[in-house]
Amino acid sequence: MTTESKTLTRELLAEFLGTCVLILIGAGVVAQTVLSKGANGGQVTINIAWGLGVVMGCYVSAGVSGAHLNQALSIALAVHRGIPWRKVVQYSLAQTLGAFVAAAIVFVTYHEAFAAFDGGVRQVLGPQGTAGIFATYPQAFLSTFPGGVIDQVVGTAILVGVIFGISDARHGVPSGLGPVVVGLLVVAIGMSFGFNAGYAINPARDFGPRLFTAVAGWGAEVFRAGNAWWWVPIVAPIVGGTLGGWLYDACLRER
Amino acid sequence: MTTESKTLTRELLAEFLGTCVLILIGAGVVAQTVLSKGANGGQVTINIAWGLGVVMGCYVSAGVSGAHLNQALSIALAVHRGIPWRKVVQYSLAQTLGAFVAAAIVFVTYHEAFAAFDGGVRQVLGPQGTAGIFATYPQAFLSTFPGGVIDQVVGTAILVGVIFGISDARHGVPSGLGPVVVGLLVVAIGMSFGFNAGYAINPARDFGPRLFTAVAGWGAEVFRAGNAWWWVPIVAPIVGGTLGGWLYDACLRER
Amino acid sequence: MTTESKTLTRELLAEFLGTCVLILIGAGVVAQTVLSKGANGGQVTINIAWGLGVVMGCYVSAGVSGAHLNQALSIALAVHRGIPWRKVVQYSLAQTLGAFVAAAIVFVTYHEAFAAFDGGVRQVLGPQGTAGIFATYPQAFLSTFPGGVIDQVVGTAILVGVIFGISDARHGVPSGLGPVVVGLLVVAIGMSFGFNAGYAINPARDFGPRLFTAVAGWGAEVFRAGNAWWWVPIVAPIVGGTLGGWLYDACLRER
Amino acid sequence: MTTESKTLTRELLAEFLGTCVLILIGAGVVAQTVLSKGANGGQVTINIAWGLGVVMGCYVSAGVSGAHLNQALSIALAVHRGIPWRKVVQYSLAQTLGAFVAAAIVFVTYHEAFAAFDGGVRQVLGPQGTAGIFATYPQAFLSTFPGGVIDQVVGTAILVGVIFGISDARHGVPSGLGPVVVGLLVVAIGMSFGFNAGYAINPARDFGPRLFTAVAGWGAEVFRAGNAWWWVPIVAPIVGGTLGGWLYDACLRER
Repeated sequence: MTTESKTLTRELLAEFLGTCVLILIGAGVVAQTVLSKGANGGQVTINIAWGLGVVMGCYVSAGVSGAHLNQALSIALAVHRGIPWRKVVQYSLAQTLGAFVAAAIVFVTYHEAFAAFDGGVRQVLGPQGTAGIFATYPQAFLSTFPGGVIDQVVGTAILVGVIFGISDARHGVPSGLGPVVVGLLVVAIGMSFGFNAGYAINPARDFGPRLFTAVAGWGAEVFRAGNAWWWVPIVAPIVGGTLGGWLYDACLRER
Repeated sequence: MTTESKTLTRELLAEFLGTCVLILIGAGVVAQTVLSKGANGGQVTINIAWGLGVVMGCYVSAGVSGAHLNQALSIALAVHRGIPWRKVVQYSLAQTLGAFVAAAIVFVTYHEAFAAFDGGVRQVLGPQGTAGIFATYPQAFLSTFPGGVIDQVVGTAILVGVIFGISDARHGVPSGLGPVVVGLLVVAIGMSFGFNAGYAINPARDFGPRLFTAVAGWGAEVFRAGNAWWWVPIVAPIVGGTLGGWLYDACLRER
Repeated sequence: MTTESKTLTRELLAEFLGTCVLILIGAGVVAQTVLSKGANGGQVTINIAWGLGVVMGCYVSAGVSGAHLNQALSIALAVHRGIPWRKVVQYSLAQTLGAFVAAAIVFVTYHEAFAAFDGGVRQVLGPQGTAGIFATYPQAFLSTFPGGVIDQVVGTAILVGVIFGISDARHGVPSGLGPVVVGLLVVAIGMSFGFNAGYAINPARDFGPRLFTAVAGWGAEVFRAGNAWWWVPIVAPIVGGTLGGWLYDACLRER
Repeated sequence: MTTESKTLTRELLAEFLGTCVLILIGAGVVAQTVLSKGANGGQVTINIAWGLGVVMGCYVSAGVSGAHLNQALSIALAVHRGIPWRKVVQYSLAQTLGAFVAAAIVFVTYHEAFAAFDGGVRQVLGPQGTAGIFATYPQAFLSTFPGGVIDQVVGTAILVGVIFGISDARHGVPSGLGPVVVGLLVVAIGMSFGFNAGYAINPARDFGPRLFTAVAGWGAEVFRAGNAWWWVPIVAPIVGGTLGGWLYDACLRER
C-alpha cells in the first residue's frame, strides 16, 4: 500500500473502532438497565454511560481520525471546515459498520439475559420490548413532523455547535482532554433533550444497531415502529449538526 | 464596523450564545424531569445538568467574552476587578436575551410533551404546574424577606467568591479547564443550597425565562406567584455576588 | 505588620475560608436532603457534594495555605513532611473556626426550613433529628471502641495516604487539578466508608459544627449522643492520618 | 540491597498498595450498599466508586510500577508491549496479596455491621448473603460456558483495548490525568457490562478477596457457588485483555 492509502485505512479503522466502543458502552448500559428491570441501571447510569461511551470512543480514535463517530459531525465539518466530502462518505460507512458490530457484541454478551427476560420472543416495543436497547423510538405523544424532526435538529445543533466551541482554540481545552468535555456535553444533552425520542443525534449510532435488530430477530417492525421513525435520526441530525455549526461560526468565528 | 465595535459585537454574541446554551441545558433538564413525571430525570440529573449547562455555556464564550453568563458575576467584576460598567449593561442585555431565546427553544422542542402533560392548560404551580421548568419559585415555608433574600445572597456569594478563587492564578487551574471547575461549583451549590428556592443565583437565568413564560401562555401569574418572588433572584444575587467577591478579596487578595 | 506576619495572616484566612466553604457545601447538602425528606437530595448527592466541598475549599486556599482544611492532614504533614508544629496549632484553630461559621451560615440560610421540618423543637437524633446535618453520629450497632475508632482510623488513613500519593510528583497530577482529584477521593471514601459513622475523617469538619449545634439550640446532648461519640472523630482521624502517611512513605517514598 | 532490587521492591510495593486501595474502595462500596440494605448506596455509587477505586489505586502506584493492578493488563503488556514475563509473575503476586489484605481491612472495619446484618452467620448467596461484597458471582441465568466466559472476555477486552488507546501518545492524555480517564472507563464498563456477573475483569480483584472470604468464615462454598464460578474471572480476563490489546494494535498501531 502507498503511505496515503495506509493512512486512510487507519483512519477508517479508527472511526470503526471508535464508534464500536461508543455503541458497546451505549447499547450495553441500556441492555443492563432494561434486562435487569432497573435493578442494575437507570436514567442516571444511562445518561452517564452514553457520555462515557463517547469519551472512550474518542480515546481509541481521536489522534488518528479526529474522532467524528457521527455523520452529523462529519458533514458539519465538511460544510464548515472543508474536510473532503469523499472522506465523509468513507467515514460514514466505517461509523455505521462499527455501530452494527458493537450491537452484535452486546447482543451476544447478553444473549442469555435476553432469553431470561423475554423467553426468546423478541419484541420491539411494549413491556417486554427490547429493540430500544439498540435504536431509538419516539414517545407516543411525539409527531414525526414537526415534533420528532425539531427534537433531533435541536439536540444535534447543540451537540455540534458546542463541539465547535470546545475545539475552538480560544477556549483553550487541552487537546488530550477534549474527549472528556465532549462526553460531558453528551451527558448534558441526554439529561435535557432525551425525553422526546432518546437523543440519537447521530445517524450511525441509530441506524447501525437498528439494522442489526432487523436481521437478528426483531424483524422489519424496527423500521415500521413509531410511525416509521427510523429515518428521522438519520436526516434530522444532519440538518441540526450543519445548523449548529453555522450558528457557532456566525456568532463567534474570527474573520 | 471598526475593529473595536466588531470586538464588542462578538463579545455580546458570546454572552448571548453562552447564556442560551446554559438555559437550553438547564431548562431542558427540568422540562425532561417534570414532563416525564420523574421517569427520565430527578434531583441528581437536575443538579448535574445545570452544572454542565454552565460548562457548555462557557465553552461557547469564555475565550471571547470571559463567559460571565450572569449579571451577578458581571457586576462583581465591575466592582472588584474594574471591568467597565457600560460593558455590564451591554452584557446584561445579551445574557437576558440569550436566556429568553433558550426558554423559547426548550418550549418549542417539548411542545407536544407539554400538551401531553397538561392538556394545553398552562399552570404556574401545583401538580400540573410547569412554570418552574423555566424560572424559580420558593418553597411555601420561605418568606421573601429575610428568608428568600438570604438564600439568594448566600448562594450567589458562594458562587462568585469561589469563582474568584478558581480564577486566582495562585491556585493554578488551567484556563481551558476553568469552565469544568465552575460547573462543578454550580453542581455543589445546587445540591446544597437549592432547597429553599431552586438556586437561581443569576438574574438572567431567572428573569429571561420568566419573561418568556409570561408571554407564552402562563401569563402575569409568573410575576405574582410566590408572593411576587420574581424580583428576589434579580436583586439578591447582585448583592450576594458583590459580597462574595469582596469576602474573597478581603481574605486572600495579594496587596 | 511585617511581611512574615502578613503571610501568616493570609494563610490562616485561607484555612478559615477553605474550611468554611467545605462545610457550607457539606452541611448544606445534608440539610437539603434531611429537611426536604429526601425530595431534593439523597446518598448520591451527599457523597458527591462533600467531595465537591473539598474541591471548592481547596480552590479558595490551596495556593495560599496549601489547603489542609483538616487537622489530620496538618498533623500528618508535621510528622512526615516537617511543617512546623506551631503552624499546625494555628491552622487548627482557623479550620475549626471556619467550620463553625459555615455551620451558622447554613443554619441561618435554612432557618425557615428547619422550622417547617421540626416545628422549632431541635432534636439531635430520631426521625425529626437534625444534628446529623452538622456533625456525625454512629450507627446504633457500632461500638465506640474498637468499632468507631477503627472506622475513623481506616477512613482517614486512606484519605491521607492517597493524598500523599496524589501530591507525589512521580504521579504527575497537574497542581491546579489536585483539588479535583482529592475531591474524587473524598467521594470514594464517602461511598465506601461512610456507613458506620458518616465519614468525618476530619476533626475540624466534625467538631466546629458540633460546637455550633451545642450553642444554637440542640444543647449538650450533641456531646452525649452516640455514647459520647464526639471525641472519636477528633482523636481517631489524627491517628489514622499519621498512619496513612507513614504507610505511603514506608512503601513508596524515595530514599 | 542493590539499586535494582530496591527498584523492584518498590514496584511490587506499589502494585500491592495500589491494588489494596482499589479493593478498599471497591469492596467498601459494596459492603456499604449491602449492609445498609441500600440506604447508603446503590447501583450508581457502586459503579462510580469502583471507578474511583481504580483512580486512587493508580495515584499510589502509577509513577512507580505503572499501575497495572490487574494481571489481565500485566499479561497484555507482556504480550503486546514486551514487559518481561518474570515481572508479570511478581506483579501478579503483589496484586493478589494487596487485594487479599484490602478485603481483610474492609471486613474488620465493617465487622459490627456484618454482625448486625446476618447475626454472625456468614452466607455466600441469598438475601443475607454477603460474599458478593468481596468477589463476583454470576446471575442465575448465566451459563459458565459460553455465557460467563464471553462476558469476562468482552468486558476485559474493552478495558485493555481502551487503556491501550488512553495511553497512546497520539490521543494526548496528560500522563498525570490518565488515571482519571481509566477510572471513567471502569465506570462505563460497570454500567454497561456489569449485569451478567459483576464485571470482575481482573483476576486479582476477584481471587484475592474470594480467598479471604474462604478463610474468614464463608468457607469453601465461595469456590463452589455459581457452578464453581471462581475460575472464570481469572482465566477469561486474561484471554480478553490479550485480545483487546491485540485488536487495538491491529487496527491502530503505527508500523
